[in-house]
Amino acid sequence: MNLINREAGEPGLSVPCWGIFNLALKGPAAGNPYRDIRLEAIFRHGNRTLRTRGFYDGDGMYRVRCMPDALGDWSYVTSSNIPELAGIEGSFRCSKPAPGSRGPVRVRDEYHFAYEDGTAYYPFGTTCYAWTHQEDRLQEETLHTLSQSPFNKIRMCVFPKNYSFNGTEPELFPFEGNPRDGFDFTRFNPMFFRRLEKRIVELQQLGIEADLILFHPYDKGRWGFDAMPPHADELYLQYAIARLSPYCNVWWSLANEYDFMKAKAPSDWDRLFRIVQTEDPYDHLRSIHNGTRMYDPESVVMYDHGKPWVTHCSIQHWDVNLAHEWQKLYRKPVVIDECGYEGNIPQRWGNLTGEEMVRRFWDGVTRGGYVSHGETFIHPEDEIWWAKGGRLYGDSGPRIQYLRRVLEQAPPGLKPLPVRDVPTIGIAGEYYLQYFGIHRPAYRVVDLPDDAQFNIQLLDTWTMESVPLDGTFTGSCRVELPGKPYMGLLITKLT
Amino acid sequence: MNLINREAGEPGLSVPCWGIFNLALKGPAAGNPYRDIRLEAIFRHGNRTLRTRGFYDGDGMYRVRCMPDALGDWSYVTSSNIPELAGIEGSFRCSKPAPGSRGPVRVRDEYHFAYEDGTAYYPFGTTCYAWTHQEDRLQEETLHTLSQSPFNKIRMCVFPKNYSFNGTEPELFPFEGNPRDGFDFTRFNPMFFRRLEKRIVELQQLGIEADLILFHPYDKGRWGFDAMPPHADELYLQYAIARLSPYCNVWWSLANEYDFMKAKAPSDWDRLFRIVQTEDPYDHLRSIHNGTRMYDPESVVMYDHGKPWVTHCSIQHWDVNLAHEWQKLYRKPVVIDECGYEGNIPQRWGNLTGEEMVRRFWDGVTRGGYVSHGETFIHPEDEIWWAKGGRLYGDSGPRIQYLRRVLEQAPPGLKPLPVRDVPTIGIAGEYYLQYFGIHRPAYRVVDLPDDAQFNIQLLDTWTMESVPLDGTFTGSCRVELPGKPYMGLLITKLT
Repeated sequence: MNLINREAGEPGLSVPCWGIFNLALKGPAAGNPYRDIRLEAIFRHGNRTLRTRGFYDGDGMYRVRCMPDALGDWSYVTSSNIPELAGIEGSFRCSKPAPGSRGPVRVRDEYHFAYEDGTAYYPFGTTCYAWTHQEDRLQEETLHTLSQSPFNKIRMCVFPKNYSFNGTEPELFPFEGNPRDGFDFTRFNPMFFRRLEKRIVELQQLGIEADLILFHPYDKGRWGFDAMPPHADELYLQYAIARLSPYCNVWWSLANEYDFMKAKAPSDWDRLFRIVQTEDPYDHLRSIHNGTRMYDPESVVMYDHGKPWVTHCSIQHWDVNLAHEWQKLYRKPVVIDECGYEGNIPQRWGNLTGEEMVRRFWDGVTRGGYVSHGETFIHPEDEIWWAKGGRLYGDSGPRIQYLRRVLEQAPPGLKPLPVRDVPTIGIAGEYYLQYFGIHRPAYRVVDLPDDAQFNIQLLDTWTMESVPLDGTFTGSCRVELPGKPYMGLLITKLT
Repeated sequence: MNLINREAGEPGLSVPCWGIFNLALKGPAAGNPYRDIRLEAIFRHGNRTLRTRGFYDGDGMYRVRCMPDALGDWSYVTSSNIPELAGIEGSFRCSKPAPGSRGPVRVRDEYHFAYEDGTAYYPFGTTCYAWTHQEDRLQEETLHTLSQSPFNKIRMCVFPKNYSFNGTEPELFPFEGNPRDGFDFTRFNPMFFRRLEKRIVELQQLGIEADLILFHPYDKGRWGFDAMPPHADELYLQYAIARLSPYCNVWWSLANEYDFMKAKAPSDWDRLFRIVQTEDPYDHLRSIHNGTRMYDPESVVMYDHGKPWVTHCSIQHWDVNLAHEWQKLYRKPVVIDECGYEGNIPQRWGNLTGEEMVRRFWDGVTRGGYVSHGETFIHPEDEIWWAKGGRLYGDSGPRIQYLRRVLEQAPPGLKPLPVRDVPTIGIAGEYYLQYFGIHRPAYRVVDLPDDAQFNIQLLDTWTMESVPLDGTFTGSCRVELPGKPYMGLLITKLT
C-alpha cells in the first residue's frame, strides 16, 4: 500500500505520512556487499534530521527506506564507504496519511498505548510464531482467519522454529546457505525478507501490529540462529531494522523465552536492546519475553523490564491477576503476552478451555494489564494456530471481541481502582468496569458517589449479553447478581 | 464415652488407652481458686512420668485428667499449694483402646499424618468457626450434618465470633462476667468448657479431629478476648489445656488469621506456642493460621512455620498449587486450611463454585498437600456453615468424599513426583495419582517403567466415575483422554 519504489532523482514524489519512501540505487554486486558496504541517509524535515541505514537487496540493488511522520517537505542525502552510493540527494513531500493509517503505536498514560495520531490502542494480540515460514496456502489462510478475528497484534518470529508440532523445514532462510552445508551469517537472503515484508504490509492492511520476535530459543542446534556470534547478531539486527523499521506496524520483541537461550546472558540482551534502539530511527516499541523467569533481584537470569530501553512488559505468566503488581513494579504497560493457550495438546500451557482463556483476558484487563491469545488444538497435519497459523477452532475469539468492544467504548486512561474483592478499572466517579471471574456472588454492594446518578449494565462475558439494570443508581446500592461465574458490571455516570 | 469420674482412693479402676482418667477432688470454693490454687499430678507408667495440671471446675470441685497412652498399670500423686489437695495417691489400669479409637494424630513421614496406632490419617477438614456458640438445635444439626459428611477434621474457635453474618450474642462465655459489665479474665466459666468438652467428645465419636482455634481476631472490642493482657492469655491457656488436652482428638491452632490480631507481635506467638508445648503433656499437633501474610523473611509480621514448636503448616492461600513449595520450605506437612469457600456471599473468599472447591482439593493433594473445606451460602437466618454450622447446600461434599476414598485406598507415604505438566503424587514404579485440573489434554503420554505392567483408571473427579482403561500398560504409552477438565489418572502396578 504505502510502498513507493523510487529511483534517485525522480521529482515531485508524494509519500503519505507513515507510509514508506523507498530509494533504490544501483551499486556493486561483487564481494560481500551485506557486510562490506555501508550505506546511510540523512532525511531532513525542517530542522529535524532522521538517520537511516540502507541495505543491500541482492542483484546489485541497494535501498534506503524512510517512514515520514510529519507533513510537508522532506529532503535526503546519502553517505557511503563507496563513492557511487554517496552524496545522492533528493526530496519528497509527505502528504496526509492513507485512510485508516494512524501511525506507530506508542506508550501513553504510563500504562496504556495509543497510535501516534492519538487514537487509543488496546492490544488484543494473538500468537502465530512461525506462520510466515509455512507454505503459501497456509499463510493466506492465516491472513483470512486474522481478518475475521478480534486480534490487532500478532507475535511472530523472524527466524524459523524447531519445536513440538513444528518439524517442517522452511522454504526460505534469512541467510545464504542451507541446513546441510550451514549458513553464512554475513550474507542475507533478500527473498526471505521480501516475503516477510509482504506479510507485514498485509497485517497492516488488517489493522494488525506485527510484534516481531528477533531471537528465540526454538532452534536447538538445527540451524544455529539461536547461538550466532555477537558480530553476527549485530549485523542481523542492522539489516533487519534497516529493512523492517519503516513499516509503521512493527514492534520489536528482542526474544521469546530469552531465559531459555543458554548462549546469551542478561548483559547480551542489554547490548542487543541498545543496538535496536540505536538502529531504529522511529523508536518502535521494544520488549523482551520471559520463559519461566520473572524479575528476581537474586537471579542472574532475570531481565529487568525497568531498564530504560524496555518500553513495556511482555510477560509470560499464567497468573494474570499479578498484572497490577507488575505495573507498580515497572511503571510501564503490562502485556501478558502468554498466559496459556486455548486447546487440547498434552502440554500444560496449551490445553485451556475457552472459558479459562477468556477469564484470563478479563482478569488481566480489569487489573490494568493486557492479555494475548493463542490456540493449540491437536490437528491431523499439525496445523496449530500458535505455531503455523491456519484456522481457529476455539470458543474464545468472539468473547475476546466482546471485551475489545467494551474497552474501545470506554473513556481513555482507565486505571485500576481500589475496590474490595473485585478487580475494577475505571475513572473514579465516572466509569467502572469490574469482573467477578470464577467468583459468583449472589449480590454485590456497589459504592458509588452520592452526588451523581449511574447506569449499570450486567455483562455476561461468556454469553456476551450486556443487560442494562432497571433504574439508575447512586450511593451505596445493592446489585443482585445471577450467582454464576464470568459476570461483570459496567457502571457509567449519567451525563 | 471415655470419661471416667473417680473419687480419690477407689480401687481397681480400668481406663481404655487414649480414654480419660478423671480424678475429682473436693476443695475450697472461697477466693479465686482459678488463679490462686495450683494443682498438679504426676502420673507414672513404669519409669515414665507424665505431669498434668488440674483445674477448678466450680462449686468446690477440682479435677485432674489423664489420657493414658500405654497399656498396664499407672499410678499418680498430686501436688498443690494447699495441703488438702496435695499428696493424694492412687492407681488405675490402662486397658486396650475402645473400638475405633486410634489415639492422637501425629506427623508421619515428614509430610503426612497418622494416628498413634499407625493408621494413616488424611486430613479432610471443614470449617465451622463458631458452631459451639449457637443454640443447641443448631449444634445438633451441625453434628448430624458432619455425620453424613466426608470430613474428619473441623476448625472451630474456643472464643465466640463477632463478624459478618455472626452477630448473635452467645449464651455462654469462657470467663465470668457479661458483655455489659465486662469479663474477669482470672475466673473461668466451667459451664462453657463443659459444653465445649461435650462437643469434642461427640466429634470424637464421629471420627472427627477438633482443630481448636485458641485465639482469633473476630472480636474487635466487643468482648475483649483478642486483646487480653499477657498474664490472662497464659492463665487461659493453662486452664484450657488442663481441661481439653486429655481429649485425644484435640489439635491446637494457636490462632486464626494471627496477622490480623494487632495486639500481638510474632514474639507473642513464640511465647504462647511455648506455653502450649509446656502445658500439653500429650504433644497434640500445633499450628498457626495466617490471614494475608505468608512467610516472608523481610516482614516482621510473618510467622515462620519452620519454628520447632510448629508441627505442621496451617495455611490460608487461594493458590493450592504452591503446596509443594511450602513443603520444601518448611519440611512439614502442609494443610491449606483455607483456600476459599464454596458459596455465593459477596466476599471474594466465599463465593467459589463446587467445581472450583473440588479442584482446589485435588490440585493441593496431588502436589503433596492437604486442603480444607468451607461453605458460605447466603441463608435467610445467616445459618452459614463456615461460621455457625447447620446444613450443607453445596456440591463439593460427595466429590471430597470420592477423593478421600481414593487416598485411603492408596499405599501410605505418597510423595510429589517430578512429572512434567501434571501434578502427580505416588510411589515411583508402584503407584501414581495425577490430576489435570482445569487443563484438558486430548491425550497424555505416560512414562512407566519397562519392567512392569500397570493398570490405569481414568478418574472423573466431578462425576466421581473411575473407569478402568482396557488392557495393561508398560513403558511409554499414550492414554487417550476425554478432553474435558477435572480428570485424573490412577496408575497402579500389577502384583
